[in-house]
Amino acid sequence: MHCYRTHNCGQLRSQDAGSAARLSGWVHRKRDHGNLLFVDLRDHYGITQCVVDVSSPVFKVLEAARPESVVTLTGKVVNRSADTINLKLPTGEIEVQVAEAVQQSTADVLPMQVAGEQEFPEDMRLRYRYLDLRREKVHANMLLRSKVIASLRRRMIEQDFVEYQTPILTASSPEGARDYLVPSRIHPGKFYALPQAPQQFKQLLMVAGFDKYFQVAPCFRDEDGRADRSPGEFYQLDFEMSFVTQEDVFAAIEPVLQGVFEEFGGGRKVTPAPFPRITYDDAMLKYGSDKPDLRNPLLISDVTEAFRGSSFGIFAKGIEINKAVVRAIPAPGAAAKPRSFFDKLNEWAREQGAGGLGYIIFAAEGPKGPIAKNLDEARIARIREATGAKDGDAVFFCCDKKGVAEKFAGAVRTRICNELELLEQDIFKFCWTIDFPMYERDEETGQIIFSHNPFSMPQGGMEALLEKDPLEIKAYQYDIVCNGVELSSGAIRNHRPDIMLKAFEIAGYPNEEVERRFGGMLNAFRYGAPPHGGSAPGIDRIVMLLADEPNIREVILFPMNQQAQDLLMQAPADITPERLRELHIKLDLPKPKKPVAEGGAQG
Amino acid sequence: MHCYRTHNCGQLRSQDAGSAARLSGWVHRKRDHGNLLFVDLRDHYGITQCVVDVSSPVFKVLEAARPESVVTLTGKVVNRSADTINLKLPTGEIEVQVAEAVQQSTADVLPMQVAGEQEFPEDMRLRYRYLDLRREKVHANMLLRSKVIASLRRRMIEQDFVEYQTPILTASSPEGARDYLVPSRIHPGKFYALPQAPQQFKQLLMVAGFDKYFQVAPCFRDEDGRADRSPGEFYQLDFEMSFVTQEDVFAAIEPVLQGVFEEFGGGRKVTPAPFPRITYDDAMLKYGSDKPDLRNPLLISDVTEAFRGSSFGIFAKGIEINKAVVRAIPAPGAAAKPRSFFDKLNEWAREQGAGGLGYIIFAAEGPKGPIAKNLDEARIARIREATGAKDGDAVFFCCDKKGVAEKFAGAVRTRICNELELLEQDIFKFCWTIDFPMYERDEETGQIIFSHNPFSMPQGGMEALLEKDPLEIKAYQYDIVCNGVELSSGAIRNHRPDIMLKAFEIAGYPNEEVERRFGGMLNAFRYGAPPHGGSAPGIDRIVMLLADEPNIREVILFPMNQQAQDLLMQAPADITPERLRELHIKLDLPKPKKPVAEGGAQG
Repeated sequence: MHCYRTHNCGQLRSQDAGSAARLSGWVHRKRDHGNLLFVDLRDHYGITQCVVDVSSPVFKVLEAARPESVVTLTGKVVNRSADTINLKLPTGEIEVQVAEAVQQSTADVLPMQVAGEQEFPEDMRLRYRYLDLRREKVHANMLLRSKVIASLRRRMIEQDFVEYQTPILTASSPEGARDYLVPSRIHPGKFYALPQAPQQFKQLLMVAGFDKYFQVAPCFRDEDGRADRSPGEFYQLDFEMSFVTQEDVFAAIEPVLQGVFEEFGGGRKVTPAPFPRITYDDAMLKYGSDKPDLRNPLLISDVTEAFRGSSFGIFAKGIEINKAVVRAIPAPGAAAKPRSFFDKLNEWAREQGAGGLGYIIFAAEGPKGPIAKNLDEARIARIREATGAKDGDAVFFCCDKKGVAEKFAGAVRTRICNELELLEQDIFKFCWTIDFPMYERDEETGQIIFSHNPFSMPQGGMEALLEKDPLEIKAYQYDIVCNGVELSSGAIRNHRPDIMLKAFEIAGYPNEEVERRFGGMLNAFRYGAPPHGGSAPGIDRIVMLLADEPNIREVILFPMNQQAQDLLMQAPADITPERLRELHIKLDLPKPKKPVAEGGAQG
Repeated sequence: MHCYRTHNCGQLRSQDAGSAARLSGWVHRKRDHGNLLFVDLRDHYGITQCVVDVSSPVFKVLEAARPESVVTLTGKVVNRSADTINLKLPTGEIEVQVAEAVQQSTADVLPMQVAGEQEFPEDMRLRYRYLDLRREKVHANMLLRSKVIASLRRRMIEQDFVEYQTPILTASSPEGARDYLVPSRIHPGKFYALPQAPQQFKQLLMVAGFDKYFQVAPCFRDEDGRADRSPGEFYQLDFEMSFVTQEDVFAAIEPVLQGVFEEFGGGRKVTPAPFPRITYDDAMLKYGSDKPDLRNPLLISDVTEAFRGSSFGIFAKGIEINKAVVRAIPAPGAAAKPRSFFDKLNEWAREQGAGGLGYIIFAAEGPKGPIAKNLDEARIARIREATGAKDGDAVFFCCDKKGVAEKFAGAVRTRICNELELLEQDIFKFCWTIDFPMYERDEETGQIIFSHNPFSMPQGGMEALLEKDPLEIKAYQYDIVCNGVELSSGAIRNHRPDIMLKAFEIAGYPNEEVERRFGGMLNAFRYGAPPHGGSAPGIDRIVMLLADEPNIREVILFPMNQQAQDLLMQAPADITPERLRELHIKLDLPKPKKPVAEGGAQG
């Protein structure tokens, strides 16, 4: 018999009754029934009920074992009596009558319980993460994460992608978020940087002739923590392909995502591939966001013309003087809502910094509300047509400059959806946002600047750059969105140095500056670069969606807290003066605030 | 037709003749045959011969395209004439008659050629790595690496291991090699460290109840570069298991390694599992190394007793006065070698710092050489028996203190094997070295110190620590060795705080110091720790063995050079004073050497 176990704690079934078994695991729970002591023994695989009679010499050992001690129990598997069968437990038909017990490791009194539903503060959970990770939900989340990543890998490999490891100690990125830096011991005064993403390396891999790259890639950004972003490191399913169009990229990743969400979605529905493509302009118009949540059935529409020159003065003036637009958000069935429903929304709108939230109630007896009074029938008919509002519905309006109105209409859309409980449940709805603008006008300086990624290929290539109004140029840039969560940005890259220099020139960068800042990449493109593109869905976010966890720390084994500290390993930590000298750096600490001299004025 | 390709460059076969095809790739080679221009078009998948007639408008485009330009060629697939079929090329039966050509990217004059066999200096290869990676052998090595890693993963998952990601930004390890450090922006004066290995995390995972962990883990050591060790980062197949004995660990990893070496060994034989287990003591005696290369058939033997009190004075005195031992290394068939063979070996031995290399030649007419003259028949018979030497063989001898003699005998064994060309070819020979000593005596201080890993479980546990001579205690610690290369160390860990404190006490560490330095781990073990163990075979080394590359940079995509510089991305690099301030550090550069004042004495 193996010295630790013949079976794991999730393995024994009724058909094992009568055989001998040895189990090792943690003392999950003990129940003392006077003449019998029940021990729920737990390991990675499950829980098995073990029982010992008070007369047995083993009784004392188990009676003394505190919860979470590790023991090895040997005995006979027996069927439970019909009335004690536990159908919730896979091993619930049997129990083990313990004849031998060995204590492998004794547990001190625990700072936090493992069994049970009690909640503990995050700091305590992170400090004793090895205890926290024993709890059922956290344990299950980590297994889910591992399985999701293994499945992503398998699916990418099945599609002929090859995984390559790119460097982690590398150079500072030319732009983006803040890098983590690593002082060099051998090269005084110089620093490595941890990659914010393997963006440059994956493009170099394409230039080097590797065709379909992917990597479950650790990425590092020295940013402040948020619920959905861990300070420090995160993982993305980084991929890149050569000789592809945007549609090829979509066709490559859609079945991977659909497959993983179906595999681990626990029965929730998933948008079948191909996912809907929504242009950026359409997304901003109809959803008020470039991350449309398609579970929300409401569609925003433009009703500017219905208000232009109308007697509803605030909107009419806004349209005429400030080039404002009016966006309409339907609220199906809201006509039946009490006045307080509309008042509450108006109050919320003012909290959001809007002047208020105009509306029309399409009651059976005719349109109602302050706006309706100021619009003639033709205008109201136009609004009905645009919004599809029927009797019994209401429609809300935002009037502001385009960008502001779009975003606020998006917030109203979300709010009304929630108020009316219209959000589709138990489904993962995917879409692509495409055709992002290449450039935008800086509101303050009036200059043309890049909207998003300067390294994306402009649609129309050099011709578009030379001939089009920059603000009209779209980029081959796309986001993949699931339930309103942006999983990833991606693009067909600009692989042509001539087009890149021109694109930067339009955004006000002279050629010399582009060469100076991005020369490494430009030079690589000068020795034969294939057209290429890709994306990099965030793995932590995928797992968060699947695990239905709003906090990223619930899907990471050993996360840092929001102050970027690892409470378990005590990082970051002081280092010795010898190490500092070796790295050719000195501390340059912020000056402590001067203490105010007690009871006296300062000189 | 797809705008870039209908097929890749390794795909077309004779049965495609007659169909239209579009290919994209790099202009690998051009051959101008006057009226015909041949272009070998290359991509990730292979090479296809394309041909264009001088009369075609396409001719000019391709004539102008420099090697390594990226082009898209469209045309008809035709069978080559029988005399021009190239059987070395999978696409060698066909060629593409080009009707359209689009230049996707023009290549400048290349700093190094891609086609051909020319060698380039390493600095140039690393600076233009994206060109170097296009070359056949390097490209193949990278694919091999990817496939090996994917196979390792698949095999681990098939054995119910689960892959988890452990943190990369973490705390400095309590000991071992030098860490890379990362200054914290949020916590002035404090530093993260990059993990030298996920050792502590994998043990914490076991304490947290995860049963069979593995990870293709990036590891970071700030060490100087060597041929077989990349400065910066390297990868290991890190794994750990709970409730296991040493044999369970072996049984888990042996089929994985055997399988991968068989899958990618290109027909080379592989030791079948179970691999031989060789105790440390035996390894040092018979192979003169704890990393025995079993392809070398020679076995060292101890012949101290044959020389004790003999008339061969140097050895006899050494044995008597210095407690020296004598080790014998056989040289089968060497009796037939000329005198120069023995002289050369002696010369080499002296270069290695040995006094020389005594030997006996077992000639048909009787034993010869200076040693034989000083030994009686009984002693010589004893040597024959110990070494198994037959007529026609020779035997070499080392006499020194045990540790020195062992190591030198090992070097002699290797040298003779090479000289006599006895190394078994086309085979991967695995073995385990086991039973490493827990402690050794420090030669200088005379104190008992840890031999290897202080965190391994001593064989015999607490009882052994309390009752045995420390120098007699073995640890559950093992190395896995392939062809004389150590792939990994591993151990059954010490999971018992009481045994750990005692083990350190024997090595001269008071309990308080152990608590101070390793308290995090000790505390975790105090809340229920399972017996556990594992290992971590080096992935770069596995790929080096399979690719038959002695230089680790041949199996890494973007390696640093031996001065720990990334010549392509220019890392490490200067950073701005703003970034330094933000990280609360200042540079502390070595003082430049004072220039000597020209033509005058200094004051």
